[in-house]
Amino acid sequence: MGNKNFRLKISYDGTRYLGWEHQPGKDTIQGKIEMVLARMIGLEPNQEEFFGDNPPVDVIASGRTDAGVHAKAQVANAVLDTNLSAEEIRDYLNTYLPDDIAVTDVKEVSDRFHARYNAVGKTYQYTCFEGPVKPVFNRKYYTYLDSPVDVDAMQKAAEYLVGEHDFKSFCGNSHMKKSTVRVVDKIEIKRSKGYIYFTFHGTGFLQNMVRILVGTLLEVGAGRMSPSDMPGILEAKDRKVAGPTAPAKGLCLVKVDY
Amino acid sequence: MGNKNFRLKISYDGTRYLGWEHQPGKDTIQGKIEMVLARMIGLEPNQEEFFGDNPPVDVIASGRTDAGVHAKAQVANAVLDTNLSAEEIRDYLNTYLPDDIAVTDVKEVSDRFHARYNAVGKTYQYTCFEGPVKPVFNRKYYTYLDSPVDVDAMQKAAEYLVGEHDFKSFCGNSHMKKSTVRVVDKIEIKRSKGYIYFTFHGTGFLQNMVRILVGTLLEVGAGRMSPSDMPGILEAKDRKVAGPTAPAKGLCLVKVDY
Repeated sequence: MGNKNFRLKISYDGTRYLGWEHQPGKDTIQGKIEMVLARMIGLEPNQEEFFGDNPPVDVIASGRTDAGVHAKAQVANAVLDTNLSAEEIRDYLNTYLPDDIAVTDVKEVSDRFHARYNAVGKTYQYTCFEGPVKPVFNRKYYTYLDSPVDVDAMQKAAEYLVGEHDFKSFCGNSHMKKSTVRVVDKIEIKRSKGYIYFTFHGTGFLQNMVRILVGTLLEVGAGRMSPSDMPGILEAKDRKVAGPTAPAKGLCLVKVDY
Repeated sequence: MGNKNFRLKISYDGTRYLGWEHQPGKDTIQGKIEMVLARMIGLEPNQEEFFGDNPPVDVIASGRTDAGVHAKAQVANAVLDTNLSAEEIRDYLNTYLPDDIAVTDVKEVSDRFHARYNAVGKTYQYTCFEGPVKPVFNRKYYTYLDSPVDVDAMQKAAEYLVGEHDFKSFCGNSHMKKSTVRVVDKIEIKRSKGYIYFTFHGTGFLQNMVRILVGTLLEVGAGRMSPSDMPGILEAKDRKVAGPTAPAKGLCLVKVDY
């Protein structure tokens, strides 16, 4: 026996969850995984323990995702006192987790691996659909646009946002005390068969940042803002001058770099 | 004004429905569409009227789909006393239908067009997944297989089933009085990235027939039946000798030919 550090890759449909982070009495992805792992290592956990200073199992993700946001490959780590193999842990988790959360991979890693501190980049994808008929089967994974948007204008606006900037205007947490400077090195916007895919890559993102970026770009796409408004919005460092926060359902964390 | 005949193409996620066919007090796809159309033409329908001899709106599909079965392009027709254009009808329907039903196309057609009598062929797809980790996002549209199956053996078995046969052994309705002879001209089974796709094309299918065919082929895939058992199963004309009925969630009506 003895403590081993495991890296987990996790795919989830965030629709019915209050987000990644565990909260007393709420359905969260972290909460579901921690409860299953606690049972796996022989504990009979009660929810309250997980919110003390010394939780029985602590699953640390690359970052929180908001309520309703999805992930194809969230990465987390957990230090576990177990003799089970990585594959056995994966199978145990998938047996007991609800079918909207899947642990796609488990690997034993160095004690030093920390899913949040060691993350050096993240890719998010935001999906919209425009057209007269809303697709049915993936309806929980895109945001519907009532009228067509100008992708070229949005891409032009995006160029102003790429780079190292103070993204305070794009931060959903008005009480944020720490630095709001972030590096976004790619924003790519593609239209295909009625869908519009926004891909963001950066070293890290502030709370709601991708959704506010999308909401602002969609204002440009609809002609209510212009690409050349972007520098002024960054400059203002004021959430109120950026566009609205796009709905959670269109957002998916697709990759975390280490 | 005056009665016009409209052809509807309909996409639906059948998960929460008791199937296509309207039933008093139940959620069905036909029921939802008929209620919206009735309101569209100015009626204030109560559910009971739809089950009398002279329903206010009668939406006739190419065929019923069972509870939980999906459709990418079900075809139906409805005779409506309206001045609205086909596009206006489509948009009205999509505005008031729930988001798991979409009318993808509406077209005014000849009075003689009848979605059931004029259908000359149908394509169904059945989707399975095999692998240690169940995919999350499309989880309502495939059936999970606990262990790998032999696709070559299933394809061999399928060859015995292609053609004109009495499919009584594959009919879910034991009280079926009419002919159970049908022509299935294609059964194709493909494996791709953990998924197994069964595609069936035929002139028509009996109740549960595709699901019983899949359930039987999966018995072959698992080694519990052999391809050469197929002729005997057809011969027996007895539901009990075929395999189990595969779950509804994996089945989707993808095309109707006219």
